[in-house]
Amino acid sequence: MAKQLNGADVAKHNKKDDLWLIVHGKVYDLTEFAPNHPGGSSILLKYGGKDATEEYEPIHPPGTLEENLSEDKCLGEVQPDTVEKLEQKNPEKAVLQPGQIPPLSQCLNLYDFEVVGKQVLKPTAWAYYSSGADDEVTMRENSNVFGRIWFRPRILRNVSNINFATTMLGMKTTMPIYITATALGKLGHPDGEKNLTIAAGKTGIIQMIPTLASCSFDEIVDARINDQQVQFFQLYVNSNRAITEKIIRKAEDRGVKGLFVTVDAPQLGRREKDMRMKFDDTGSQVQNEGKDDVDRSQGAARAISSFIDPSLNWEDLQWLRSCTKMPICLKGVQTWEDAVLAAEAGLNGIVLSNHGGRQLDYARAGIEILEEVVTALKARNLWKPTFEVYIDGGVRRATDVLKAVAMGAKGVGIGRPFLYAYSAYGPDGVVHAINLLKAEMEMGLRLIGAPTLADLTPEMVDTRALGSHINPVPESHGSQIYQRLDTAIGMPNEPTNKL
Amino acid sequence: MAKQLNGADVAKHNKKDDLWLIVHGKVYDLTEFAPNHPGGSSILLKYGGKDATEEYEPIHPPGTLEENLSEDKCLGEVQPDTVEKLEQKNPEKAVLQPGQIPPLSQCLNLYDFEVVGKQVLKPTAWAYYSSGADDEVTMRENSNVFGRIWFRPRILRNVSNINFATTMLGMKTTMPIYITATALGKLGHPDGEKNLTIAAGKTGIIQMIPTLASCSFDEIVDARINDQQVQFFQLYVNSNRAITEKIIRKAEDRGVKGLFVTVDAPQLGRREKDMRMKFDDTGSQVQNEGKDDVDRSQGAARAISSFIDPSLNWEDLQWLRSCTKMPICLKGVQTWEDAVLAAEAGLNGIVLSNHGGRQLDYARAGIEILEEVVTALKARNLWKPTFEVYIDGGVRRATDVLKAVAMGAKGVGIGRPFLYAYSAYGPDGVVHAINLLKAEMEMGLRLIGAPTLADLTPEMVDTRALGSHINPVPESHGSQIYQRLDTAIGMPNEPTNKL
Amino acid sequence: MAKQLNGADVAKHNKKDDLWLIVHGKVYDLTEFAPNHPGGSSILLKYGGKDATEEYEPIHPPGTLEENLSEDKCLGEVQPDTVEKLEQKNPEKAVLQPGQIPPLSQCLNLYDFEVVGKQVLKPTAWAYYSSGADDEVTMRENSNVFGRIWFRPRILRNVSNINFATTMLGMKTTMPIYITATALGKLGHPDGEKNLTIAAGKTGIIQMIPTLASCSFDEIVDARINDQQVQFFQLYVNSNRAITEKIIRKAEDRGVKGLFVTVDAPQLGRREKDMRMKFDDTGSQVQNEGKDDVDRSQGAARAISSFIDPSLNWEDLQWLRSCTKMPICLKGVQTWEDAVLAAEAGLNGIVLSNHGGRQLDYARAGIEILEEVVTALKARNLWKPTFEVYIDGGVRRATDVLKAVAMGAKGVGIGRPFLYAYSAYGPDGVVHAINLLKAEMEMGLRLIGAPTLADLTPEMVDTRALGSHINPVPESHGSQIYQRLDTAIGMPNEPTNKL
Amino acid sequence: MAKQLNGADVAKHNKKDDLWLIVHGKVYDLTEFAPNHPGGSSILLKYGGKDATEEYEPIHPPGTLEENLSEDKCLGEVQPDTVEKLEQKNPEKAVLQPGQIPPLSQCLNLYDFEVVGKQVLKPTAWAYYSSGADDEVTMRENSNVFGRIWFRPRILRNVSNINFATTMLGMKTTMPIYITATALGKLGHPDGEKNLTIAAGKTGIIQMIPTLASCSFDEIVDARINDQQVQFFQLYVNSNRAITEKIIRKAEDRGVKGLFVTVDAPQLGRREKDMRMKFDDTGSQVQNEGKDDVDRSQGAARAISSFIDPSLNWEDLQWLRSCTKMPICLKGVQTWEDAVLAAEAGLNGIVLSNHGGRQLDYARAGIEILEEVVTALKARNLWKPTFEVYIDGGVRRATDVLKAVAMGAKGVGIGRPFLYAYSAYGPDGVVHAINLLKAEMEMGLRLIGAPTLADLTPEMVDTRALGSHINPVPESHGSQIYQRLDTAIGMPNEPTNKL
Repeated sequence: MAKQLNGADVAKHNKKDDLWLIVHGKVYDLTEFAPNHPGGSSILLKYGGKDATEEYEPIHPPGTLEENLSEDKCLGEVQPDTVEKLEQKNPEKAVLQPGQIPPLSQCLNLYDFEVVGKQVLKPTAWAYYSSGADDEVTMRENSNVFGRIWFRPRILRNVSNINFATTMLGMKTTMPIYITATALGKLGHPDGEKNLTIAAGKTGIIQMIPTLASCSFDEIVDARINDQQVQFFQLYVNSNRAITEKIIRKAEDRGVKGLFVTVDAPQLGRREKDMRMKFDDTGSQVQNEGKDDVDRSQGAARAISSFIDPSLNWEDLQWLRSCTKMPICLKGVQTWEDAVLAAEAGLNGIVLSNHGGRQLDYARAGIEILEEVVTALKARNLWKPTFEVYIDGGVRRATDVLKAVAMGAKGVGIGRPFLYAYSAYGPDGVVHAINLLKAEMEMGLRLIGAPTLADLTPEMVDTRALGSHINPVPESHGSQIYQRLDTAIGMPNEPTNKL
Repeated sequence: MAKQLNGADVAKHNKKDDLWLIVHGKVYDLTEFAPNHPGGSSILLKYGGKDATEEYEPIHPPGTLEENLSEDKCLGEVQPDTVEKLEQKNPEKAVLQPGQIPPLSQCLNLYDFEVVGKQVLKPTAWAYYSSGADDEVTMRENSNVFGRIWFRPRILRNVSNINFATTMLGMKTTMPIYITATALGKLGHPDGEKNLTIAAGKTGIIQMIPTLASCSFDEIVDARINDQQVQFFQLYVNSNRAITEKIIRKAEDRGVKGLFVTVDAPQLGRREKDMRMKFDDTGSQVQNEGKDDVDRSQGAARAISSFIDPSLNWEDLQWLRSCTKMPICLKGVQTWEDAVLAAEAGLNGIVLSNHGGRQLDYARAGIEILEEVVTALKARNLWKPTFEVYIDGGVRRATDVLKAVAMGAKGVGIGRPFLYAYSAYGPDGVVHAINLLKAEMEMGLRLIGAPTLADLTPEMVDTRALGSHINPVPESHGSQIYQRLDTAIGMPNEPTNKL
Repeated sequence: MAKQLNGADVAKHNKKDDLWLIVHGKVYDLTEFAPNHPGGSSILLKYGGKDATEEYEPIHPPGTLEENLSEDKCLGEVQPDTVEKLEQKNPEKAVLQPGQIPPLSQCLNLYDFEVVGKQVLKPTAWAYYSSGADDEVTMRENSNVFGRIWFRPRILRNVSNINFATTMLGMKTTMPIYITATALGKLGHPDGEKNLTIAAGKTGIIQMIPTLASCSFDEIVDARINDQQVQFFQLYVNSNRAITEKIIRKAEDRGVKGLFVTVDAPQLGRREKDMRMKFDDTGSQVQNEGKDDVDRSQGAARAISSFIDPSLNWEDLQWLRSCTKMPICLKGVQTWEDAVLAAEAGLNGIVLSNHGGRQLDYARAGIEILEEVVTALKARNLWKPTFEVYIDGGVRRATDVLKAVAMGAKGVGIGRPFLYAYSAYGPDGVVHAINLLKAEMEMGLRLIGAPTLADLTPEMVDTRALGSHINPVPESHGSQIYQRLDTAIGMPNEPTNKL
Repeated sequence: MAKQLNGADVAKHNKKDDLWLIVHGKVYDLTEFAPNHPGGSSILLKYGGKDATEEYEPIHPPGTLEENLSEDKCLGEVQPDTVEKLEQKNPEKAVLQPGQIPPLSQCLNLYDFEVVGKQVLKPTAWAYYSSGADDEVTMRENSNVFGRIWFRPRILRNVSNINFATTMLGMKTTMPIYITATALGKLGHPDGEKNLTIAAGKTGIIQMIPTLASCSFDEIVDARINDQQVQFFQLYVNSNRAITEKIIRKAEDRGVKGLFVTVDAPQLGRREKDMRMKFDDTGSQVQNEGKDDVDRSQGAARAISSFIDPSLNWEDLQWLRSCTKMPICLKGVQTWEDAVLAAEAGLNGIVLSNHGGRQLDYARAGIEILEEVVTALKARNLWKPTFEVYIDGGVRRATDVLKAVAMGAKGVGIGRPFLYAYSAYGPDGVVHAINLLKAEMEMGLRLIGAPTLADLTPEMVDTRALGSHINPVPESHGSQIYQRLDTAIGMPNEPTNKL
């Protein structure tokens, strides 16, 4: 039996040169480790001598402490009733408490989950999930761009039987949508990414497991509903290549069917909504200048990502290839030039993505890039079934999916909506979201006159405005004076005031 | 005399395996029929043993029960005073009660009827009439698109006498506008579609009778003000072709002058405003997942349309042709390719339409398609008086009509505004709406310098921006900080706060 | 001495077949005239037996009654103290009373006069002046369009001395702006159009006298500050050509230097803000349908314009030419085709105009037409100093003027801002407005690097977007959920709520 | 010892023909000078006999009085306790008082300084700094334009080491950003421009010293943190060339490394927010007309700039060249034509600028001009390292800088954000702002795949929409009636009302 420590004694070790913390009932000596903590040492100091479990939990997958600390740093177990409860000033509260969440059946589309998610998540979690880089222009463009693509539906085709099953990297899926990798799943729900695994299994679609999951890789794989369930793995390459190699081999061993290497995030982006949340408990006493506080105010995103190797480049692909027999795709390609390089390098596919608008602001949307990529690949005779092109970002409607497929995408990834769905409703929420998409898919294909995905052709979309990044000339003073017809004299019975 | 039943006895038959309902004072045994009810069995169960007349009435044309049930399922008549009144929690109420409706003469344009309609209709009726598919993007685009077409008016032409009478499929009309087919007319007014018949007769324009009318086909035909009044018929083709054949032959027998086959609705679209209304009385107890509740929450639109045949295709046209001597047009053509096919198939015309934005979101507006259709037909020598091209969707002003005619349309269909007009004012409202359009037509033709429709030529419209589906780049943070000139320091005497 | 009548006796003659009215203390028998009253007979009936002076005054120039009635219809004078005062329910009130009007020096630009005007005018007057046709799209476009034209200013040019004097039809003006014709000047100020005459004289610019002035033609000419002051005359051609001929000859006799024949108004447009005002006193009792009430609800615009001849056409130009030696221009040209016809017809100029957005909605702005007109005239060798091209509509800043001149306009007309200026401040307001424009002109020319108007060349403006009539794709549901950065968590100290 | 005067005696000299003022404790006789005061004589009269120090201070650099008045006009010193305190009605107050300013670390980007600045500055100072010409269209376009430029980031490049140091006119700078010249620095902070000098020194970037500084030129140079610190000088050329020559020679003597001659401001622009502030204390009594009050209401901008020579032209360059060995650039070039002229004239560079939107409204943004300039210079073989092209205006994000550099700019100037930064936080604020930009620069270059500025190439930006100056067609009446999906029936639990 482990050594038993008293909370009051532990509490005394709360200084930079004598720093203990309690996590999951165990006491750790972090004095030596603190300067190397990827999230900075000040957050450790804040919890010095205290129980940090609640803050620790969603950010660190199981096993993190064990992997990073030598065994002797675990000093023993704390006697639970001797630990002082942390009193939070202004504890974070979601708008809606569990009993107030609307019935799942009221969610009619993926946007509804976002509305509910906004109210169900704690503000810091909402900030982490919903935020984008800088001014969030790219994040919003990801949705906007679909508005610039319109349909040219065909009529009088037999659309009695609609079938949108397909394959991805040779694996079957019930529709051309996969659950893309997103980080820190436990911020929304104690079961984290496992919610997605279960829902993907039940609905027959593929989940891409994230490197930065809250759950451990094994937990997520173990959550599969059966052995046939297909999973992909999203990879951030570590500066320490041995670690990455170990991860890849493990993924292959555990049956992962595809490796998606993220190439748009040599450094994780600035997300100011997320960053601003961090001031809640430290804002008032800081008034100092310069680089220091720039570093401190980084939010969850950058705390967890310092291991990512910014030197990763095309020449590393050979090494990657040598690590595994899994198909390899690049996630985050943003130009036709790099798409061509990827195809020439013999990779199995690419994801045209800007990382959900969370990395470089004013990066273009995946589906805009898709058009130039397809054109360039075709022109070079690289447009083949063995090189699959995916997009992600801003997909909320089946019509978005149909546009992408008509333009040449093998499938699309969806991320945030499923996070919101399980944050409010657990795996049932994700299943419902997927079923809504399936209902929309069937409707959309029928109305476009394409009974199968193969019948969706480029001529069925009007993409003339796709590359149009315009904004209106600022209005003159005069336009602010104009009095609308309805408010001028009042329409019949002045309804605008009443409605 | 029919058997007399006591309400209290009837009330006991309220279970799945013993299910009676009262409609119009008669008692029906629906136990066997319930599983086949196109609107689902749960709605029947809700009214088990009770009087369902009010809910039944607007959705089912007269004769529906008789056609679908064998005679013995009518068990007799209920004694009126023995039926318990249904008490509604939160009964639906319109914003305005009859005495509060503004005088008809205050309606100066078709938009005004929409404003009044919004206040006069019950929320469920408003939701059914006013809603569109998905995000209602196409529905709004239907109006927006006219903003991208501008006039090039000619001057110094003798415009003393303006004449905008024309013909449609050889039939005379006082202007190039017809009343298009819309469903469930009794949601707005107890006389339903008959309001339109009367107004069309009085103003000399043509009404297209809908398949999904609340009134029976015969009622609508009988409502004509005289034998010369022209009506067309809109057709949804039934999976049971015999039924459709019977309907067509009856239409011809009763003097209908044209058949418009709807081809953009193999399945009726998702209209979420409408769907959401259905939760009012069932929302709280449902929390289950998946396909089931997707199906249940469909709103009026899909409850009434399960008979439509999604297998209808070009090869069926020969059969259609064989059923009737009436001219046949396709309603819902959305590409030049299908327009060419229709012309080559020897049809009499087409309606370029997206079904009022109620089917496929991001389908283009009829008038945008018009330009490519006219170009394609002319290029193939198919642009002839014997093949008429119509548009519908979003038409609210005579200028909209003039744009369409200048670009080549034989005429345009208008739907919703007339529904709102009679919902508030009965047939007088529709007559007033049509007269407003006539006043606008005269004004518009005079100001454009075209005394007749034949003088309206393509050069009179500037359509360069027609196909422009753009949206602005999302604004940066900075644009939210800018302080307007008028609010900065205050314009003279700070009027912006006072006006 | 005229016969003296008692008000109480007069009051009895208030029926259709016995209809007397009091105007300016005189009693008229209008029984016979009423059916021919251009503004309709019902308004006369409303004032039957009463004193109609206040309503009559701004709409009818002096002499109207005398010209339209035979002498014997004037029955005598009423004894002032015997006339019952008309009590108005809810008398119209401006927002600001005279003592509350901000000091003139606070008006820094022409928009400011609009703001003040909105508060100083009675609602009916504001509605008449500020309204446009239908949805007022063209009216707003008239301002908007200038936002699509940008400058290419040149540097390092000697701009010590700026000179923007020019000529119009050979007459000198201190700047390339004239006061264009607008109707019913007394709605804003008891001196009506004379305010404009005085201000034009004091500032050395040209006034165009309107046919539909509240003041008589002679009054306006007599108001000139000296004999050198130049005036033009705007002409609506009467169905009775003799009347028009008389008017033209009189204009020439009284020294008018140019004739501007309005060709964009064979019928005066629908202006719904104006029309809606008419319901204030009659709305509640009318509930009848159809053409009748369409006609009744026309507002001031159409009441005064029934004499305009809609048959006027190109062949009438010869007759016009024969009536006068004055230069003749067409006002309201809207296509290059008609500009070419006008030049070929030997006219002296044209005004590219849509009548201030008050006639045909979706007519293009004058300055947009300017570009195609200049191109077409040059291509046909018709671009000569003897054929002058003007624009009007939406001009509020000197930069608007400079854009027009750079593109080829000889000058621009400004209307509404001067109306607002004198409504609030009399002639001083108009002088101040013109001086503000002069200050802006000097600044603008200096900053563009053009010391004189001749130095303003087409290369100095960037007009690539001129013809772009786009509108954005309607937003999806999702864009309504997005949480702005500043409201999400709060920018520093949550200033957005405080500012 | 200077003569001692009594405040009560001084107070009597408050008339046009007998006008004394107190500044910094000294009494001056301004009777003769008043008519020549560049800011007008009325402001002097207002302070006649009183202490004008507070108003005088920020507008006049030290030594102004001494340079403009002969020695005998200084009459002596006033006894401090004999001067009546000026009581201000409604003294100006900032929204936030010093203790209420948010901690500096809460400023996460340059926009945040604007938000804080708005609250920290007195309204007149805010109006002067934040305002633009006319309708502020160009000022807003300066930010907007960056939204029309998007990135084409490259992947899988080694971005471990990011380096964005560069040179300007041969001088080293830690990043391609300089602090551009802005006037009246003491309006925001008592140390005025010295704040910028200190921050520039600490962060290793270059400051451009303004001619219209509140601090004297010597003060600003003296504030350098060491002798190596690089400064440029912005020059307004005086009508009196001798003065200008003296200024240039002094600048060179004191070590200034580059001369930027402003060529877009022969007259300082109309900034109405600024002008409107001037009415606060004089508005009520003025009601007179015409030129007089146009001149009086000019705001700070024009009061300080009457010396600028509007005759400056290309031929003066030779003289300028003769005055100094410093490199000379033109600031305010706005067309490719003038860029070519500048290069041909042998100048060292240009700044493409519209003066922060403060001069000619509808002048285009610097970065829009950049594209045409680079194209034109390349076409003429004038695109060489010895001719540097800069832009300024609207730069707020490192992504803006990266776009400019990718398109060919050697660097960009930033003005207002640094003013706001020191107004709230002194030099620390500016250092923090610059460090934020450096953090963004590193992030941006890494994510674009460009480890150094040399790796930033034109292909990395998508500028197709750059020249698009569009605005949307005004909305019709109908678009004002549309009921949004979320407000129609309420999304789940009606969250839009709660969030």
